[in-house]
Amino acid sequence: MTAPLFERAAFLGFGLIGSSLARVMRRGGLVAEIAVCARRAETLDAATRQGLADRTTTDPADAVGDADLVLVCTPLGAYGQVIQAAAPGLMQGTIVTDVGSTKQSAIADLKPHLPDGAHLVPGHPVAGTEHSGPEAGFAELFEGRYTILTPEPGTDPAATDAVAELWRRAGSKVEIMAPDHHDQVLAITSHLPHLIAYTIVDTAVQLSDDLQKEVIQFSASGYRDFTRIAASDPVMWRDIFINNREAVLDILGRFTEDLTAMQRHIRRGDGQALEQVFTRTRAVRRGVIDMKQDKPDTPPEGNRGT
Amino acid sequence: MTAPLFERAAFLGFGLIGSSLARVMRRGGLVAEIAVCARRAETLDAATRQGLADRTTTDPADAVGDADLVLVCTPLGAYGQVIQAAAPGLMQGTIVTDVGSTKQSAIADLKPHLPDGAHLVPGHPVAGTEHSGPEAGFAELFEGRYTILTPEPGTDPAATDAVAELWRRAGSKVEIMAPDHHDQVLAITSHLPHLIAYTIVDTAVQLSDDLQKEVIQFSASGYRDFTRIAASDPVMWRDIFINNREAVLDILGRFTEDLTAMQRHIRRGDGQALEQVFTRTRAVRRGVIDMKQDKPDTPPEGNRGT
Repeated sequence: MTAPLFERAAFLGFGLIGSSLARVMRRGGLVAEIAVCARRAETLDAATRQGLADRTTTDPADAVGDADLVLVCTPLGAYGQVIQAAAPGLMQGTIVTDVGSTKQSAIADLKPHLPDGAHLVPGHPVAGTEHSGPEAGFAELFEGRYTILTPEPGTDPAATDAVAELWRRAGSKVEIMAPDHHDQVLAITSHLPHLIAYTIVDTAVQLSDDLQKEVIQFSASGYRDFTRIAASDPVMWRDIFINNREAVLDILGRFTEDLTAMQRHIRRGDGQALEQVFTRTRAVRRGVIDMKQDKPDTPPEGNRGT
Repeated sequence: MTAPLFERAAFLGFGLIGSSLARVMRRGGLVAEIAVCARRAETLDAATRQGLADRTTTDPADAVGDADLVLVCTPLGAYGQVIQAAAPGLMQGTIVTDVGSTKQSAIADLKPHLPDGAHLVPGHPVAGTEHSGPEAGFAELFEGRYTILTPEPGTDPAATDAVAELWRRAGSKVEIMAPDHHDQVLAITSHLPHLIAYTIVDTAVQLSDDLQKEVIQFSASGYRDFTRIAASDPVMWRDIFINNREAVLDILGRFTEDLTAMQRHIRRGDGQALEQVFTRTRAVRRGVIDMKQDKPDTPPEGNRGT
């Protein structure tokens, strides 16, 4: 137990990420008081039951009153609405951060509603599981993972440092990046893979019933891994694609070109071209292992949400 | 230890699958003698060192002499050559099986070279890891997984039963299927997912060096899972695509249509259409878990090949 980093934290939205971070705060005594705001009563009940909220409310302005740290943890599509509702309660000097997967849109949605003297430090912990909701959270989720902060030039360095320190206490490695660069990198590493996984799983779902059953039965041969990714939260992912449209369409265009080339290699029976690609990609795995990013984020047993 | 199922088994090719099956045979005393044939001396040395071969040779005809079970375990592209070389040594009544991922091509390549009185029972254990080579094998690989046998009508039922029993002793669930149906189902569950994974990993590899480094660094957000699949054996996979061309191109065509539809939804900002797909795919994961196919095939620690 060290001195708290913040006096009062307010969570606006409380799903897998928010509840995991609240667990980190409780474990480390990083904040004296936690207020949780959510729309649904079940979410607030879960926060209370798990001992993660000192105070719950459905009113964002009420939640952020007196808070020196506000954490926006709703799906991206709710940012504008929730910060607008919170704005009247925001204190001078309050740090506002978020955990959303697209940063240009986060800034565009949050910044106009913040009072002068509030500090915006957008953040994105690059971690998660296919489970969602406050029951799915666990304090170890961020350990060894990267958290990217995208403060705009001119942001108070003390505010950025405070948010960075919070993530370091969660076991995370902190990187500072420009918002547009973040969105480009994540379109490649996260958004395109999810789009592809959702699509391939759905392609199989649309087959005849008989074939569908066999697809599940023999899924261990590759399909299985895609079903895990394609089980991620539908609303969260809907909002990601809508909010990072340009970067996603750009990398999707490149992928489609490459896939067309592979299709041509197969049609022509060009084994040499295929083997060349497959040899190149095998080396990438080595890089992932070397950077210790190969192990999935796995919750402790018996702690799985929806 | 029960009575052996076979007197003498001959492996033609000895990689992840072959060596795993040899381990199963040793563990259960399922065969009195094992001969291993491979091109490379290192492979034969590994088989001997691990106590999996009673006899090693580089000559297929030598390996299969006296064998009542011949297991073709090379990449698909070597089938024709290896069985042609083995043919002079094949005994009357010998059962010839294989472990390849495409069954129509396996039959086309093997059948013409078998003497009258030999029994062809093509097989495919639907299991594997991204590691390859005889050092990567482990006896538990097939436990709880399906093995598909595709004997042609008129095949001696006793031969099919004997091969089925071998796989059941490996802990596998055995299914009998027509070869063309097998190739269609596996194109969907295995070949397309691998093609997509190889392609997406390669798309990222072709980015500028700076971006490449960040792709690895932040790979935990989705890309990581594709790198594992795209680390699978390049030669094995080259041969699969060449040998299951029609079925792969067919399902790839459907996937591309679906991906184009997703692209349009994103471009138009049609969140409702996206959410609908993502909700549908989430349900598929439940099916995979219900059929107990959600856990990856993981080798025991310290037993990883290349």
